[in-house]
Amino acid sequence: MIRVGIVGATGYAGAELVRILSGHSQVELTILTSRQFAGVKFDDIYPAMAGCVNLVCQELAVEKVCDSADVVFTALPHQLPMTLVPEFVKRKVRVVDLSADFRFNDAAVYESAYQPHTAKDLLDKAVYGLSEIYFEDIRSANLIGNPGCYPTSVLLPLIPLVKEGLLDLNTLIVDSKSGVSGAGRSVSLTSHFCEANESLKAYKVAVHRHNPEMEAILSREANQPVKLTFVPHLVPMSRGMLTTVYATPVAALKPEDIIHCYTSAYAKHPFIRLCAKERVPDTLHVKGTNFCDIGFKLDERTNRLILISAIDNLVKGAAGQAVQNMNIMLGLDEAAGLSHIPYPL
Amino acid sequence: MIRVGIVGATGYAGAELVRILSGHSQVELTILTSRQFAGVKFDDIYPAMAGCVNLVCQELAVEKVCDSADVVFTALPHQLPMTLVPEFVKRKVRVVDLSADFRFNDAAVYESAYQPHTAKDLLDKAVYGLSEIYFEDIRSANLIGNPGCYPTSVLLPLIPLVKEGLLDLNTLIVDSKSGVSGAGRSVSLTSHFCEANESLKAYKVAVHRHNPEMEAILSREANQPVKLTFVPHLVPMSRGMLTTVYATPVAALKPEDIIHCYTSAYAKHPFIRLCAKERVPDTLHVKGTNFCDIGFKLDERTNRLILISAIDNLVKGAAGQAVQNMNIMLGLDEAAGLSHIPYPL
Amino acid sequence: MIRVGIVGATGYAGAELVRILSGHSQVELTILTSRQFAGVKFDDIYPAMAGCVNLVCQELAVEKVCDSADVVFTALPHQLPMTLVPEFVKRKVRVVDLSADFRFNDAAVYESAYQPHTAKDLLDKAVYGLSEIYFEDIRSANLIGNPGCYPTSVLLPLIPLVKEGLLDLNTLIVDSKSGVSGAGRSVSLTSHFCEANESLKAYKVAVHRHNPEMEAILSREANQPVKLTFVPHLVPMSRGMLTTVYATPVAALKPEDIIHCYTSAYAKHPFIRLCAKERVPDTLHVKGTNFCDIGFKLDERTNRLILISAIDNLVKGAAGQAVQNMNIMLGLDEAAGLSHIPYPL
Amino acid sequence: MIRVGIVGATGYAGAELVRILSGHSQVELTILTSRQFAGVKFDDIYPAMAGCVNLVCQELAVEKVCDSADVVFTALPHQLPMTLVPEFVKRKVRVVDLSADFRFNDAAVYESAYQPHTAKDLLDKAVYGLSEIYFEDIRSANLIGNPGCYPTSVLLPLIPLVKEGLLDLNTLIVDSKSGVSGAGRSVSLTSHFCEANESLKAYKVAVHRHNPEMEAILSREANQPVKLTFVPHLVPMSRGMLTTVYATPVAALKPEDIIHCYTSAYAKHPFIRLCAKERVPDTLHVKGTNFCDIGFKLDERTNRLILISAIDNLVKGAAGQAVQNMNIMLGLDEAAGLSHIPYPL
Repeated sequence: MIRVGIVGATGYAGAELVRILSGHSQVELTILTSRQFAGVKFDDIYPAMAGCVNLVCQELAVEKVCDSADVVFTALPHQLPMTLVPEFVKRKVRVVDLSADFRFNDAAVYESAYQPHTAKDLLDKAVYGLSEIYFEDIRSANLIGNPGCYPTSVLLPLIPLVKEGLLDLNTLIVDSKSGVSGAGRSVSLTSHFCEANESLKAYKVAVHRHNPEMEAILSREANQPVKLTFVPHLVPMSRGMLTTVYATPVAALKPEDIIHCYTSAYAKHPFIRLCAKERVPDTLHVKGTNFCDIGFKLDERTNRLILISAIDNLVKGAAGQAVQNMNIMLGLDEAAGLSHIPYPL
Repeated sequence: MIRVGIVGATGYAGAELVRILSGHSQVELTILTSRQFAGVKFDDIYPAMAGCVNLVCQELAVEKVCDSADVVFTALPHQLPMTLVPEFVKRKVRVVDLSADFRFNDAAVYESAYQPHTAKDLLDKAVYGLSEIYFEDIRSANLIGNPGCYPTSVLLPLIPLVKEGLLDLNTLIVDSKSGVSGAGRSVSLTSHFCEANESLKAYKVAVHRHNPEMEAILSREANQPVKLTFVPHLVPMSRGMLTTVYATPVAALKPEDIIHCYTSAYAKHPFIRLCAKERVPDTLHVKGTNFCDIGFKLDERTNRLILISAIDNLVKGAAGQAVQNMNIMLGLDEAAGLSHIPYPL
Repeated sequence: MIRVGIVGATGYAGAELVRILSGHSQVELTILTSRQFAGVKFDDIYPAMAGCVNLVCQELAVEKVCDSADVVFTALPHQLPMTLVPEFVKRKVRVVDLSADFRFNDAAVYESAYQPHTAKDLLDKAVYGLSEIYFEDIRSANLIGNPGCYPTSVLLPLIPLVKEGLLDLNTLIVDSKSGVSGAGRSVSLTSHFCEANESLKAYKVAVHRHNPEMEAILSREANQPVKLTFVPHLVPMSRGMLTTVYATPVAALKPEDIIHCYTSAYAKHPFIRLCAKERVPDTLHVKGTNFCDIGFKLDERTNRLILISAIDNLVKGAAGQAVQNMNIMLGLDEAAGLSHIPYPL
Repeated sequence: MIRVGIVGATGYAGAELVRILSGHSQVELTILTSRQFAGVKFDDIYPAMAGCVNLVCQELAVEKVCDSADVVFTALPHQLPMTLVPEFVKRKVRVVDLSADFRFNDAAVYESAYQPHTAKDLLDKAVYGLSEIYFEDIRSANLIGNPGCYPTSVLLPLIPLVKEGLLDLNTLIVDSKSGVSGAGRSVSLTSHFCEANESLKAYKVAVHRHNPEMEAILSREANQPVKLTFVPHLVPMSRGMLTTVYATPVAALKPEDIIHCYTSAYAKHPFIRLCAKERVPDTLHVKGTNFCDIGFKLDERTNRLILISAIDNLVKGAAGQAVQNMNIMLGLDEAAGLSHIPYPL
């Protein structure tokens, strides 16, 4: 059994990690840490799991975590992991970090969006954990920078087409919509039921921190600088993220070209589902799952390609992909612990 | 592998059966029938399951079902199963019927609430599938009348206390609240998003068909006729049922008495969770699970006992309990296929 | 024009007061106070009202409020109004207090549920503002203790029957369900979208502070001590409160008796709507209005009467009734400012 | 008093017309027709309005409508109004038609999106009722083609900039999001609570019928053919529409330029609210109102302008704008009957 610890287990991403890893047959969950809830039984914080998870949250002590775990997931706000992860790495503990701290190869880009980076030497050792795209790199990684939810929903539909050179890279526009859990479990007016219910709005218009993350990865895959316009929106539902991408093809495309491109990229990966003509991606269809459903439409009148993806922001957009990355890193089946049958509603 | 068929697979309860049974390691799902969707791939109807369930819905043909399945679940509107189940029984196929048709021992009671019964001879062979209460009977059953969602939520908290003679049986009042999926997948103004959203209302006040079902079972357990006042309400959420029961104890009770009574009844059954003092049953905590969470409060000022239960109406209230009953009937672990870790939200 | 001030204008009840009073043709809203938002334009806090309300929130200064207003609404947490209201009363400013501080004639009852009362001498001058019931007292009042939302929804259906002596007062059970706005605008995990959505639960079971308030008023109307069992529940919707009351009649009742009783009590009051046989009270039907819809059902099988009421907790349950009380107190039409046509959804 | 009739009063747009017109002080609502509910009291269909609207729905009889009304609103599915409106026009009754039938000057465009037009001669007499833009034309109109909800939300932010020539018309991309009431009151799986709740999806991607409507109007205002890419999405809320438009400016723009352009166009129109820097349009802020809130952001990195608008799809997107158009047509204050204070939530 692989011994696994979660640092920051009581936020929504952390709790999803607890859920998934508790049901993972090759894993033993050995330690959960929480600053806010140290000493509290995990299932007192999340009573849904009463009787299913029997661990008490602990104060974070690096030594103890390293003694208890072969793999550590860090589910903390950015800026904290960069102080901890070097300790874990030094002690040969593998790490999947769910924050932004290890998603960037270029510290300057990170620092332009966040704050000074204090563990820069690890940046070129960290692998960006977009599972299907960087599968091979992840297999030999010891430190994963797990992607943001928005970048996951944007990059999975875009990268295969960008790598094939099918899109005019100056035309990329991304309109994303997220459920409220994306804002985390911390209380705020934005997440107040009465303020979020019946409310639909854009936020951080063209200045969201996931924008540079997407651009950095797209630029790498395109071998040239790529910029995109990115507008996230908040939608009155708990889970789910829908992304609509607009792009102009460089040459005439047929639907078969797109299908072929996706099939080549994703046929062997179980969590990418290409939506056939009738079906459109719908957050309800991926709720609670690690799937990324991808659909598309060629608007010949305006010569634009419209890509649509749906994920569960807490699963494929966070904890699920993190476990998928652990699986790949450890040589397990990438779907281990992640392949339960989806709910019909 | 046990071969299982579902007759009426495309309603919400049927689809939950498909979900659960597809993930049940000792079961092979061999046949799905649907009048409305014969010839359609199941995952075209429920795209959430795309790639996870590879069956095409068929027209119902009794012979074929019997050839394909050792156990059949009938998830049809009442009145239909009574025409089919005798055929299955004759052919030695075990049946779990999710309708009301085989829940009553006394045809007259059934007929007072529904319509004439055409398979009365099977009524005394059918076992009422309230899993934890009729566990022993279910073990030797061939035909299960699976309980209604409201009765499940009402009887599980009430029966242990009633059997111990703790309650004044003339004082039972039941106030239940259900999510919209309880009304099924058929379209109706009641289930229209804009009519259900921000709407809270009672319906079928004191005349709901589940009322005689509850009374029949309670009367059996109490060895005397029991009546109760029952008011169901509709709540703007997809899944979940909360029931609040009011009763007067026959003598002074202490919390420990209640706890002891529940512990005696349910300690060995994994899906009943007794909520300790701080915690109250909450539909969010049982969503997607087969749990029934039970809490209580003694209101000493008015000498009343308040019982509260929470279930997922589609799981413990329908498909989950049906599979639990199949497990018990076949000598499997009662939790087989039903024990995934609950979602934190 | 009557000059009106609101002390505590930025909570949900305060904001509803701003909405209603801004549209009240006989009123001029002259001053809004807010501790948290002093110096901020009101419509920056509630952008829905951008361009419609042109007032800046101020620090509370009693003198200034008294100079600016003929009537003051205090929409503050209990314990604060008792320190302010004596000042307003001394200066001959009429007051409608939305907290619990002036709802009780008997300080001891208040103190058993809240904390020591420091303005006891005002308690017998304050009138309980259940508009339809205490209409005459309100007409000559200078200080109104505006009822709680739960008591409003419980007392309006109960009092006419209790006054007629139709009910066995030892049998009263109240099951209430409230939308999330009842918990106010302050952020909390309870009001977090992801915790409230798809969640249905009881809270403060049999120990809610509105319980003694209801009992005090019912006891007054019944001329004898009345106790009731009260269980509030939280429902995933923004606004609305549904109350289901269970009671045993002292003698055989016919529907006409109930209808006659309500008609006698409420025929001349525009905000009580009696639901005819087909229709049941539904929070959607009273959303945003000052209506209290009342329905009932005699369950002859169990000899119980079931009463159901629906209100908007922020309107008839708070700000709307407060304005209705002001209207009555000032000799205006009781519906002034409150009679817009309801939304169909 | 202006006598007003509504043909097709029981759909959501019709019911909103009933609500608004019942509260309009210069209007008397004289006749409501409904095929489905002829003979039924309107407030039996919409019990929210019980006691507030005292009209019985009638079968449609053109003569009778013309005798009863000076102005008729037709709120019917397209293709029906074109058979009725000529009759009304012939009898000198003014008409506001909420369908698509009289929105197009060019019958060929209409016919490409809908079906053959049988009242083509009226098309050049009909005025497109985008109130703020065609204010002068509406003043002298007898027949109004009331805009679709999506076109309203798209054209109001776009037209002032397009008329000024600020945008590259080859770059227009529109991503719109609508609440479920946009799909009407007819029952369907799409509008089923359990299918819409927690569901977010695109539909009719790049083929929605409102696309040609927008393009026709934009082309007129730009004096050249304009095409745009349009993707509507369905969001789990009852009311509200948010539109995000992406466009490339033809030359460098500063925020002041945009503000100036909007101020010039809309300063004297009360229902357009320009969102200052901090505030973003939010459907919650316009719920139940006739406002269109407009915000924008210049993304200098990618040289794109992002426009955002929020409306209530049933008010400014349908019934509210229809009444606004009637007001303008009749020389009343354009806000008459439409200027109640918005709800804080």
